[in-house]
Amino acid sequence: MEKHHLVIIGSGASGLTAAIYASRAQLEPVLFEGFLSGTVGGQLMTTTDVENFPGFPNGILGPELIDRMKQQAIRFGTKIIPEDVVQVDLKKYPFIIIGNKTRIETESLIVASGALANRLDVPGTRNGELWQKGVTACAVCDGAAPIFRNKDLFVIGGGDSAVEEAIFLTKYAKKVYLVHRRDVLRASKIMTQRAMNHPKISVLWNRILVRVEGEEIVERVILENTLTHQQEKINAGGVFFAIGHTPNVSFLDRQLKVTEQGYLWVSPGTTQTSVEGVFAAGDVQDSLYRQAITAAGSGCMAALEAIKWLAHQGITE
Amino acid sequence: MEKHHLVIIGSGASGLTAAIYASRAQLEPVLFEGFLSGTVGGQLMTTTDVENFPGFPNGILGPELIDRMKQQAIRFGTKIIPEDVVQVDLKKYPFIIIGNKTRIETESLIVASGALANRLDVPGTRNGELWQKGVTACAVCDGAAPIFRNKDLFVIGGGDSAVEEAIFLTKYAKKVYLVHRRDVLRASKIMTQRAMNHPKISVLWNRILVRVEGEEIVERVILENTLTHQQEKINAGGVFFAIGHTPNVSFLDRQLKVTEQGYLWVSPGTTQTSVEGVFAAGDVQDSLYRQAITAAGSGCMAALEAIKWLAHQGITE
Repeated sequence: MEKHHLVIIGSGASGLTAAIYASRAQLEPVLFEGFLSGTVGGQLMTTTDVENFPGFPNGILGPELIDRMKQQAIRFGTKIIPEDVVQVDLKKYPFIIIGNKTRIETESLIVASGALANRLDVPGTRNGELWQKGVTACAVCDGAAPIFRNKDLFVIGGGDSAVEEAIFLTKYAKKVYLVHRRDVLRASKIMTQRAMNHPKISVLWNRILVRVEGEEIVERVILENTLTHQQEKINAGGVFFAIGHTPNVSFLDRQLKVTEQGYLWVSPGTTQTSVEGVFAAGDVQDSLYRQAITAAGSGCMAALEAIKWLAHQGITE
Repeated sequence: MEKHHLVIIGSGASGLTAAIYASRAQLEPVLFEGFLSGTVGGQLMTTTDVENFPGFPNGILGPELIDRMKQQAIRFGTKIIPEDVVQVDLKKYPFIIIGNKTRIETESLIVASGALANRLDVPGTRNGELWQKGVTACAVCDGAAPIFRNKDLFVIGGGDSAVEEAIFLTKYAKKVYLVHRRDVLRASKIMTQRAMNHPKISVLWNRILVRVEGEEIVERVILENTLTHQQEKINAGGVFFAIGHTPNVSFLDRQLKVTEQGYLWVSPGTTQTSVEGVFAAGDVQDSLYRQAITAAGSGCMAALEAIKWLAHQGITE
């Protein structure tokens, strides 16, 4: 079995930034980038223009940004393995990482396996349909885009972040509709009150999204009343899913501690997980910020912590 | 007095990233960028090639990276004020921010005023001399540069980070000399042991750096023995200061809680300071990672927290 100083799982902004730092430090990291599209390159691969990654004043396409980070990691000596990790053994040391074909022993590990924004799987919202053509899962990332200006926008969800995203979108929208399947929001009282008092927000109770329509971009949503089962077709400029995220932790088989929400637990302010020598970066450990730049920042932190930890163990002297 | 939703103090990677996010969210932030060179643009302005900022596979000059972030912040509506902040009043609300000429009332504040790496002020090390031509204060940032390969490198300091930097540099150096003014390191026992046992590290006890010489780049150091006062001239390929950093907090006049080391205290894993509505990002609150990408990441966090906090207060609806 191959033996390495550091394995990185994940090829989004956090994993690649960890790889840039670790390879510049000559750890010769091995990065499992995933196998299927939808995992390779992380969530930036499903975006178009990224306007808020600092350093790109005219914006940059998400896949191009990821490609640039990947070239940078390779330039300094990262070895990329185009496989998913199917299993790990963190009870043995060195740890064992098992990919689709490759097994590796490693002295340290950075988990940067990301998360997926939850989406309703309804007609019109899928990849190749209107996903990223007015249908999105991140108001902060996409809300400022010109296609949403002065339009009627629909936020799907009922928690605090759905309300926060609805309020955020009022800066750009003509009107924001919060679509919730029940007759009470999960959001805190104060945020529910803010939503209900906001002149630009209407809450549509007991409604579910059944379809999104449009030629090139979103033009209409079809909602169904959960009590009457009546459907209504409404003009719409955008659909924002705010129904949570699912961190990608299943391959870890509960060997790392997770939070109540299922994210990897890290010691606050660091990337240290519940197992010494294992670090977590990016959205798999971040339920709050979830931006490309915060993921990249935590990838750097994980690499620096791994470098330091290996040095303190006397492993890489 | 002008009144604003958000003031950002600092124009390095963290302040500018906060500005990009806050201005895209239409908070119309006002950013005090500083007045004197040495403050404007932060520590990236005193670097040359930045190889580890993700997204730039061929590297980018520090000042160019900062300029690009600044254009991006301006593009989305950040107002830049070319002044230092001389005083703040965080006991009043809205907070009061006083620049060289401008006074502003603000509903929220992001402090991103940075830190300066401590340097010995000895001949040869200054700006315009050999600073950034072999003299640096960041092994992680600069150690991988070609000019340091297979050279004799001198780390000035005696704490844990000096030892960590020395070990880090052994990956590139022919030999690393740890120059310490006393006869015992401040570093922990285990790290002291690692340094003393390392085949590529020699500790030079009771020595101070008195001069650095070289035509275009560092060629020699002159050290003085603190006991005998004898000087020796030694061939050198690089000088790395590892004698700590000084966060720039004096203008805050102790209105925000600081850590034992003098950095702004934040609730771990967030950018929330000891005063509600005031957030801190970048090196002024980071004694550990201090990279451009981690500073940028925390700038984004601070902006998102400020946006959310203002929304929860009902201020920016």
